[in-house]
Parts: sequence; structure tokens; C-alpha cells
Amino acid sequence: MQKEKLYVIKIGGNIIDAEKELNLFLREFALLDGKKLLIHGGGKLATKLAAKLGIEQQLIDGRRITDTDTLDVVTMVYAGLINKQIVAKLQSLGCNAAGLSGADGNLVLAHKRVHPSIDYGWVGDVDAVNAKLLSTLLQNGFSLVIAPITHNGEGQLLNTNADTIAQETAKAMSQFFDVQLIYGFEKSGVLRNAEDDGSVIPMISSTNYQALKEEKIIFGGMIPKLDNAFAALNSGVKEVIIGNALHLRELIYHTQGTKITNEKS
Amino acid sequence: MQKEKLYVIKIGGNIIDAEKELNLFLREFALLDGKKLLIHGGGKLATKLAAKLGIEQQLIDGRRITDTDTLDVVTMVYAGLINKQIVAKLQSLGCNAAGLSGADGNLVLAHKRVHPSIDYGWVGDVDAVNAKLLSTLLQNGFSLVIAPITHNGEGQLLNTNADTIAQETAKAMSQFFDVQLIYGFEKSGVLRNAEDDGSVIPMISSTNYQALKEEKIIFGGMIPKLDNAFAALNSGVKEVIIGNALHLRELIYHTQGTKITNEKS
Repeated sequence: MQKEKLYVIKIGGNIIDAEKELNLFLREFALLDGKKLLIHGGGKLATKLAAKLGIEQQLIDGRRITDTDTLDVVTMVYAGLINKQIVAKLQSLGCNAAGLSGADGNLVLAHKRVHPSIDYGWVGDVDAVNAKLLSTLLQNGFSLVIAPITHNGEGQLLNTNADTIAQETAKAMSQFFDVQLIYGFEKSGVLRNAEDDGSVIPMISSTNYQALKEEKIIFGGMIPKLDNAFAALNSGVKEVIIGNALHLRELIYHTQGTKITNEKS
Repeated sequence: MQKEKLYVIKIGGNIIDAEKELNLFLREFALLDGKKLLIHGGGKLATKLAAKLGIEQQLIDGRRITDTDTLDVVTMVYAGLINKQIVAKLQSLGCNAAGLSGADGNLVLAHKRVHPSIDYGWVGDVDAVNAKLLSTLLQNGFSLVIAPITHNGEGQLLNTNADTIAQETAKAMSQFFDVQLIYGFEKSGVLRNAEDDGSVIPMISSTNYQALKEEKIIFGGMIPKLDNAFAALNSGVKEVIIGNALHLRELIYHTQGTKITNEKS
């Protein structure tokens, strides 16, 4: 049976920090026909606010620790300011948006990260996404804007990676929809040469992925992102696309960006 | 035709500022059977945060002006931190809560306050409450937690008085429900003697209201509150009750608090 299409779109910090780009993106998002979810990260605003408040950002092995004060800051910035500013802008563009954190309607249940040596503080790893809640709201005509704050079901809010929420949401929604998961950022896609925005790899399949890793064309932080993309495909997500957030339609129609696929190439 | 009952409950800043009292209130709220909406104010947290950030609070004739920085602060604190902390706590108490600002789903449309001599900044006066949205969410089993941030439909967020949102919400919902509007605060009700919490006036009708004003038992800030209560009753709200937020059931069953009524006494 043909399922209805759903766009799950994640935008990164660089788009959120740049007002003009964010407005361009939101215009594209509002114009998009059909059912859609937007997951936003936080950008630099939370770091700036923490600095102004004299809250020291603790890093262990390069990973940020979310202490209680930092959790308050990200909750304020992500679930408050950024989420509501995006919702108000989308409403002004004729898109009936509603914002949610992972606590609202028990949307994203998580647990405090367990790690053998590092205490990450109030960082949450996702246990479940409430796909029924999202489906109900989508069927009622809302476009949903999700902030990367979750809860543990025992009254504790948690700071959760927005990429992970996007991926888990896409997976959970695959039972009801044909999901296209789009990671939008400031580059045109996965690049052969990081310095050359024209060097987009149009398609990464499970076959050429190995070769691209061996040739060190794909390395570092891109590897977990792509591993996650393949994991999403293996869990029922129809398509994963990485590319420029400002060219949303081009990404959807495969004229730009990098398509990740399980098909043999 | 008998309509279903709906509780519209507003809690003030003093309850929000006191963690223990807030938790006691939320437990009572979670236990309440039936459909319910909670509207919360902001408490002192926004003022404290503004002070820490060096944002000066401008007062004109004793009224706070909401400049752009202050709007960001109240959006973060009200729609972000307080709203999501309340939602997470209610979820942990088995209450399927979801938080909303006035921008979400176009819940509360407002306009920037027009005043002949004072520019209040980004303060919003309410034009319309989306009763259909609230009804849909209530019918889907959610208890809703509303932060006093609204929008103007043109992308601008606005800071709006929580009492006013409670009143306008109660009025708008009266078309679908028998609405009991409850203003919960730290006192036991409207008092004959401000110093004596045992001096609660159990009922204020349109008849004894005049006498209470003439005797100066009711004066100052209580007059607009009661005027608003009577306006709500005249617009279809079934009952307005003012009393101690921690004794929610007693207020609902009229064993405590002040009942405002249009009935002749």
C-alpha cells in the first residue's frame, strides 16, 4: 500500500544563527506541499547566553557537559526563543506551525546518558518517539517544529542531539508514512573536496560508501552522520538527503544534494 | 444541552517561584478529573534573568515596557523554561500535558498595544483565542499548559498578561464547554482584611460588589481583576473562582475561595 509522504527536515546551527538565511529557509519550508516536520538545533545563541551569564562550558574529551545551569539555558533558548520565533514566522507565512519539545505530549522519551567514564550531565539518549502523537497533529493540519529538548518521564528535562531526534523521528514515522529525511545545512551536500562546494557527491550507496571511506574522502564527523543515515534507511526510512537548507525543493527533487541510498550502485 | 465541563486554571507568579508549592499545585492539577487548561504567569525568574544580563527594566507610570531584549527574555523564560518544566513534571505525574505559546497553532492572536501616550513596546493585547485548536487537543486527551506569549500573525511575538489570556481563553471556550475559570494564588480568596487570610469573602455578586467597593474593602488592583471576572461571566463563562492554588479541589467544590457570580444575592 502506498503511504502518504512525510518530510522530516533537520536544520543545523549555522542556518539558525543567520537571520536572513533562516528566513529564506522558512519561506521554502512554508511553501512545501504536504505533511512536514522541522527539527532545529540550537546554534550559537545558547553558548553566547551561557557566556553572558558566566556559566562555564565544561568540555570533557571535546564533548560538552550539560550541567543544571546549562540545561536551563538550552531549554530557554531551544524550546523557548528559537522554537517560538520559528513558529511565529511560519504562521506569518501561512504555514500552520506548532512547536513542541520532547516533553510535550511525551513526544520524545529519553534517559540520561550512561557512559563508563564520562558523566555528560543532563544529556539524553532517545528511547522512543511518540509517532502516534505526531501523526494525530499532522492529520489535524499542523506542521510541527521540534526543539531538541527531551524528558525522562520522571520530570527531568534532557538536552538531546538534534540529528539524533531527526533520525529517530524519521524511523518512528516510517510505520505511518513514506519518510524523506533531509539534513539541511550551509553546504551543497557531501563534498569530495571540503574546499569546493561544487564537488558534491550526488549519491552514496552502501557500496561506494566503503570506497569513499577508504579513500578518506569521507572522514571524521561525516562518518557517524552517514552511519546514522544508513541505519535510518535500514529501519524503514525511504530516503535520506544531505544538502543546502536553502534549496529545499531541489533536494527533494534530487537536482541537488547528496542522496543516501541502500540501493546497489 | 448540557455541555462538558472544562477547568481553565491560572496560576500566578508566587506559586511558580516556590518550587515546593508549584509541585504541590501540579500534583493537585494532575489529579483533577476531566478536561483542563493551565495558564501560567512568569514569576520573578524573567526579572532576575534580565538583571543578570544587564537588561534594564524600563518602567513608565509603573508599567513595565517590553523592549526587544526583554521580549527575548520573557519568551525564553515563560515559553521555554517554565512551560517545559511544568509539562515534564505533569508528564511524570501521569498527566498527558502539552505546552503551548500563543504562536503555536495560532492559539492567541494579539496586536501591539495602542496607547495615546505610552509605547509599551512588545506588549500584546488579545484579539482572538483559537478555541477550535484547544478543543481538538483536549478531545485528543491532552491537558494544555499555556505560556503568556502571543503573536501578531506577522511574525512578531508579544508579551501578554496571563490573567487576560486566562479570561479570553475561558470566554472563547464557553462556546464548547461549561467553563469554570479559577484564579489560583497564594491567598485564600478575596479578603475583607488583607492581613487576615481567614477573612475570605465567599461570594461576590454584581450586587454586593458595588457595596464592597464603596466600603473600600475591595480597592486597587483587585478592582480590574473583578471587573474582568464579571466581564467573563457576561460572556458565557459559567463560574469564576479566586483562591489558594494549593487547594484546587476545595475551590472547585466551593468549600474554599471566593466565588464570583452574576446571580443576585
